[in-house]
Amino acid sequence: MSTFKLALVQLAVGAQKAANLANARRKVLEASEAGANMVVLPECFNSPYGTKYFGQYAEDLQDTQTSESMHALSQMAKDGSVYLVGGTVPERTSDNKLYNTCTVWGPQGELLARHRKVHLFDINFPGCMVFQESEVLSSGREMTQFSTPWGSVGLGICYDVRFPEMAMVAARRGCMMMVYPGAFNTTTGPLHWELLVRARAMDNQIFVAACSPARDLAAEYQAWGHSIVADPYARVVATTDEKEGVVYADVDLGLVDEVRRAIPVYSQRRFDVYPDVAQKK
Amino acid sequence: MSTFKLALVQLAVGAQKAANLANARRKVLEASEAGANMVVLPECFNSPYGTKYFGQYAEDLQDTQTSESMHALSQMAKDGSVYLVGGTVPERTSDNKLYNTCTVWGPQGELLARHRKVHLFDINFPGCMVFQESEVLSSGREMTQFSTPWGSVGLGICYDVRFPEMAMVAARRGCMMMVYPGAFNTTTGPLHWELLVRARAMDNQIFVAACSPARDLAAEYQAWGHSIVADPYARVVATTDEKEGVVYADVDLGLVDEVRRAIPVYSQRRFDVYPDVAQKK
Repeated sequence: MSTFKLALVQLAVGAQKAANLANARRKVLEASEAGANMVVLPECFNSPYGTKYFGQYAEDLQDTQTSESMHALSQMAKDGSVYLVGGTVPERTSDNKLYNTCTVWGPQGELLARHRKVHLFDINFPGCMVFQESEVLSSGREMTQFSTPWGSVGLGICYDVRFPEMAMVAARRGCMMMVYPGAFNTTTGPLHWELLVRARAMDNQIFVAACSPARDLAAEYQAWGHSIVADPYARVVATTDEKEGVVYADVDLGLVDEVRRAIPVYSQRRFDVYPDVAQKK
Repeated sequence: MSTFKLALVQLAVGAQKAANLANARRKVLEASEAGANMVVLPECFNSPYGTKYFGQYAEDLQDTQTSESMHALSQMAKDGSVYLVGGTVPERTSDNKLYNTCTVWGPQGELLARHRKVHLFDINFPGCMVFQESEVLSSGREMTQFSTPWGSVGLGICYDVRFPEMAMVAARRGCMMMVYPGAFNTTTGPLHWELLVRARAMDNQIFVAACSPARDLAAEYQAWGHSIVADPYARVVATTDEKEGVVYADVDLGLVDEVRRAIPVYSQRRFDVYPDVAQKK
């Protein structure tokens, strides 16, 4: 099995968690009916994006039965019989810390992986965009990957994509794709969203997918949208505008081998000259 | 001094070394007269590009007076009173090894740095582009940077740009710009030339310049051209087509500080989660 159908759900997210979960479910099942084998939801798909919302919408994710969002994601994956990268939700731990957390589910509804955003989004474009996730969030301390019938997939969340090491490590440890639920904005989106996705794909010769919420013109934080999939040649194979919708891509993993035969960087790196970031510390 | 004028000489290279050196000299002095403070020549600026030419055109670069090309470069830099990244020339060492080597010269004609291509260009696009530098060349073992009144500059040669570590290390060690003399081709050029330059600029928040030979339709190896400068936001600030010419860019180093204040990745990297490639081994 070297090909599968990927769907990125660019969800319109509102203030009502239950409505967001129901909308996500509809879209995941729609993608499943369209033949998707793997479905991705965006960052903060069950709440508005903003430091004041994280605590308000946070759930304890440890018990997937008592957490409303975990339960809903498990059911969506199972009912759609898909691999589901469940976007991100605000997580509150037993020691009262908050994280921006992605969970991944298998087609029987089983939890496959949990990734806490490693690089918190603290930026300062004066007059355009100031944001400090670190005011309220704690940061993850681990890189995350999960297995599928098609190969291993690495996970990052939004601002994680700016740090090339995570994709380098994942690819060198065998991942054939990186998935980033992410909510760039109308300042950083046009500057770097597509370029980041293509750069990670090119340097690591993997597929890269980034899934944004739809833009809500009434929200304080205006998401960039433009959910996107790049192939291992760094070509954009699917993308969209800022509105709600589902982006589909046929992922042909044969391209990973093809480009690595043509441009064999995997055997040409000079770890005698610089260290390999994928070496275990 | 936080700004300077950079010139990339996209040179038309022929089979006659003396004519290539004379043409390079004309263009360097032309750029100097136009106000350039730093001038860059392309990869293989004194010879055609091809494995059969490297040995034929190679010189011992250790004695800058007896080497025709070293002597010419030193004089160009001095007579133009510019910092000169002297493209690359085939180098033959006393133990009869061949290298693809870049030399850098100061405005008094003094040698500032020497970089031997670390990553040899061995690629295989069946039916499009097969090339094996390693058939005849040996590879460098060191990363190289040099100092200017405006700051430190890192060096790479062509295929070196595909390996993100070199720019990561240079930038983390204080370089504000990477310069790559490079001769991509009509297969790899449209795929990745601009994307590579912009990716290195974005991830490291530095200026990146890549200087190609002009395309020679009669040559076996068709250079891509499109010499290019990207700023620390990864915006293309100057580029051209495939023909001979000089690309000028006003390099405002204030942008390096500006983007690093806006998107402060330099204080956000997680070297507790992955290693720092710039750490000395």
